[in-house]
Amino acid sequence: MTVGRREVEEAVARIAGRVRLTPVMDLEVNGVTVTAKLELLQHTGSFKPRGAFNRMLGEELPAAGVVAASGGNHGLAVAHVARTLGVPATIFIPEVTPPVKRERMVALGARVVVGGAIYDDALAASRLLVEETGALEVHAYDHPLTVAGQGTMGREILQQAPDVDTILVAVGGGGLIAGVAAWVQDDASVISVEPEKIPAMARALEAGRPVEVGVSGIAADSLGAKAIGAVPFSIARRFVNEARLVSDEAIREAQRFMWQTTHLVVEPGGATALAALLSGAYRPGAGERVVVVVCGSNTDPGSVSA
Amino acid sequence: MTVGRREVEEAVARIAGRVRLTPVMDLEVNGVTVTAKLELLQHTGSFKPRGAFNRMLGEELPAAGVVAASGGNHGLAVAHVARTLGVPATIFIPEVTPPVKRERMVALGARVVVGGAIYDDALAASRLLVEETGALEVHAYDHPLTVAGQGTMGREILQQAPDVDTILVAVGGGGLIAGVAAWVQDDASVISVEPEKIPAMARALEAGRPVEVGVSGIAADSLGAKAIGAVPFSIARRFVNEARLVSDEAIREAQRFMWQTTHLVVEPGGATALAALLSGAYRPGAGERVVVVVCGSNTDPGSVSA
Repeated sequence: MTVGRREVEEAVARIAGRVRLTPVMDLEVNGVTVTAKLELLQHTGSFKPRGAFNRMLGEELPAAGVVAASGGNHGLAVAHVARTLGVPATIFIPEVTPPVKRERMVALGARVVVGGAIYDDALAASRLLVEETGALEVHAYDHPLTVAGQGTMGREILQQAPDVDTILVAVGGGGLIAGVAAWVQDDASVISVEPEKIPAMARALEAGRPVEVGVSGIAADSLGAKAIGAVPFSIARRFVNEARLVSDEAIREAQRFMWQTTHLVVEPGGATALAALLSGAYRPGAGERVVVVVCGSNTDPGSVSA
Repeated sequence: MTVGRREVEEAVARIAGRVRLTPVMDLEVNGVTVTAKLELLQHTGSFKPRGAFNRMLGEELPAAGVVAASGGNHGLAVAHVARTLGVPATIFIPEVTPPVKRERMVALGARVVVGGAIYDDALAASRLLVEETGALEVHAYDHPLTVAGQGTMGREILQQAPDVDTILVAVGGGGLIAGVAAWVQDDASVISVEPEKIPAMARALEAGRPVEVGVSGIAADSLGAKAIGAVPFSIARRFVNEARLVSDEAIREAQRFMWQTTHLVVEPGGATALAALLSGAYRPGAGERVVVVVCGSNTDPGSVSA
């Protein structure tokens, strides 16, 4: 099973009424007007409920409930969807998950277990529980239903900004960018932006297959997958046009920029795509219409407003 | 000179490119879908630049610059516009202005002077400087150009939510609601929402003229005018359909609701219109399409996320 426009349309129908149509707003960035897709205003503060709803509404859910591994945002979404659908959820998190994400998962009623140093460790730990209990594993990105769910955001972008030339998307395991690319295809350029310290998509596009990279830095809780997933990569290799890298300092600067110009609280991974514009890692051409996805808000507001 | 659709259209042309088209987003409030106009994403964190740009671009500005009295948001807007246009600004603030607003005005290059306990005291103090220096007084609400500028937000609302039945707007001196009503007229109901502790519009509509009320409570920095202005009231008496009051606790609850459901940082005055929906001070009828204006974000994020 692959993911294309038909699967995204099916996701739209499946999750209708469950997710928000998040707004877009024009911003001036380095003297250029760009359109920000404010997906951080989604339920639970990231795009993740799109994929989580599509996955969990597209499966028979066992009485043992669901298990997920997550740096935080996917776990928040799974906890939210599980509560909505009335099934138990256990979330395995790595040590890099910030307290604010952990606390919000607990507040949503999930059982939260620390399962290692980084996301991939938590994923391995979560699989033991899946084998033991028969719970459903809800992977953070490497499943066609999850990718198709995230693709609903790509469909919204083309409706809200029909003249878009270029869409900048932050990348961890690749679920969001793959979903967007599955919808957008050749109607706009889709550009990957990653922290220099986690260049999973950049290396995968170079190698022609997912390869493992190091995981560290300030966005490791949300973008810290060691490699792009197989399902996302099968789409990205066809429809992701370029990969750009940004420094942690550029990410911090993008967080500060958003706070100062809009008073939006943006987490490091949520500001990563914007960091490419502010730092010059991506420079739009004359008249190029750019949409930059601002995809997560789960951070301590004191960390951006200081 | 009064304010009607023509004056609002003139304002749209005058301030084009200077203010943001702020987005709308649907939210579930007490099980009812309402549309939030996210005007807190405007430059300087409130709607005030609309009126300030229209006023200051519509006048010959003296070399002595501009003087304004403000609880904070108008002062921030005047400081921003003055910096943009290259003239000096002095802002008189009352003691109720929170530190975050004062600091942001200073960061925008304004001279800031404390001029008494509440807004009306600061206004009196500001007028001495105007007489002394020949600077232009930029009133926070009681001028046709200011009201027409705020009206540009009303025009956007009808474009973004053309089926709207009812628009809920927080009221201080009446500039925003008058501008909205001057555009909307009979195309939707325009409802005033005020803190119980500052019922200036409620009392004015009862009396048929602006009357002085007490000023206190958590929204006094942004909604703390003793009386509705003469210019706003001349429009409000014709086109503002009802006035509702909310408690300070309902305002705090609305701030918490916005933080928890969207991670938007909303100041007390910015959450006052929403408080009417959450508290039941305004109950939409079956099928009624409501737009609630969320008009300010200038507060310490720690005060809403705790």
